[in-house]
Amino acid sequence: VNLAWAVGQIMRTLEAPGQSPDALRIAVEEEAGTIEQEEIGRSIAMAQHGAGLVPKNATILTICNTGALAGPGMGTALGVVFQAHQEGKRPRVFACETRPLLQGARLTTLELLRAEIPVTLITDSAAASVIDRCDLVLVGADRIARNGDTANKVGTRMLALLARAAGRPFYVVAPSSSFDPKARTGADISIEERPAEEVQRFGRCPVAPARVKVFNPAFDITPAESITAFVTDKGLIRPPYGRTIPRLLAS
Amino acid sequence: VNLAWAVGQIMRTLEAPGQSPDALRIAVEEEAGTIEQEEIGRSIAMAQHGAGLVPKNATILTICNTGALAGPGMGTALGVVFQAHQEGKRPRVFACETRPLLQGARLTTLELLRAEIPVTLITDSAAASVIDRCDLVLVGADRIARNGDTANKVGTRMLALLARAAGRPFYVVAPSSSFDPKARTGADISIEERPAEEVQRFGRCPVAPARVKVFNPAFDITPAESITAFVTDKGLIRPPYGRTIPRLLAS
Repeated sequence: VNLAWAVGQIMRTLEAPGQSPDALRIAVEEEAGTIEQEEIGRSIAMAQHGAGLVPKNATILTICNTGALAGPGMGTALGVVFQAHQEGKRPRVFACETRPLLQGARLTTLELLRAEIPVTLITDSAAASVIDRCDLVLVGADRIARNGDTANKVGTRMLALLARAAGRPFYVVAPSSSFDPKARTGADISIEERPAEEVQRFGRCPVAPARVKVFNPAFDITPAESITAFVTDKGLIRPPYGRTIPRLLAS
Repeated sequence: VNLAWAVGQIMRTLEAPGQSPDALRIAVEEEAGTIEQEEIGRSIAMAQHGAGLVPKNATILTICNTGALAGPGMGTALGVVFQAHQEGKRPRVFACETRPLLQGARLTTLELLRAEIPVTLITDSAAASVIDRCDLVLVGADRIARNGDTANKVGTRMLALLARAAGRPFYVVAPSSSFDPKARTGADISIEERPAEEVQRFGRCPVAPARVKVFNPAFDITPAESITAFVTDKGLIRPPYGRTIPRLLAS
């Protein structure tokens, strides 16, 4: 939804009447640069709002990649970790590997190691074995409906259930542009299905019989009631989301 | 725990006084054969008791491999599926791939395809995306404590949480020899930690930075209160487990 929003901004630039092609090209480039700077500013704002939720020496559970490799500036959920680290809070992270494409194993571990933030890699299922050692869960978002239902990387809903069962706060870190005014609830968000090969094979190596049917959704919907708060560039959004999210969208 | 139990049975055979080595060897072989036949009988009994819980045209969620490749006879959880299929109930299965070693992708899909039972492979995290389409969850067990806490393949606890949140029954299928009278609760069961390489690499291909720390528990503990019933060779064991499991152990 962020990409569609940014493209919409650019398209509006092209609607200026009576401009030469060169003038339009320059206007588009300028608008793109402005969006980039604004997004970096939003990332920093999210990180700062979020770091306030992170206690000293916190252990944080996360999924997928939500750092500088995934979004502008410091990213979203991982940006909060970087910020807490910069503030001297000494956070440590359990990173879910994030099947099937292993963004957690491949990217999140790399970014945290480079920042010298202690990180332990786990399979997605092992989250249940570490939740008691975690203080909070931080995830990003693909798209957030008006009622707070949140589409994010498949596996996020499992973590939300787990956090709730264990009595741990579950925060979604996302810029205000990830809130989709057109989606009333999660039911209005269509979930991309990805190729069977991502699950059936590993690189070129088959890991399942070739003729087995596969269901490979890219995202899942975390119900609003499992989310403790949203961390946005405009501050924290807390329940009741039916009131607070429309207020954010109108701001 | 089953293996320790069977070894114990064999060791008792060796305690017969004044036997020649040849007589002992024959006695051990006979005892082993008896155990095998009894275990096959238990597998059939479990499958029959369990199939009674499976409605017609049921969709079943499972994890790991619990069929004929994993245990005697028809196995445990998958034995129930085979039995329901033989009874003409037309079950279909969502098989969790079961990271890190992918027993679900490699073995469960194979056994179900061979039996011509419809199977769809999913990543472990995608279980949350299919639970609403499932009628019940069937899993095996590594070891069951006296209060019903159950050690099984890592990921099982996530499925139990999910089943509970979705209001679906969660059954553990295990022979009575999997109940460990020495374990009072799950806290008395030590969890094997497996090598980091299982998560860090795929075959010879690295999927995470080599210097990242990994936590790779083989099993997790599903709390007794998340388990709808145990399907054993001696019938169904229902809560309160504090009463029903000691009765099973004494029988």
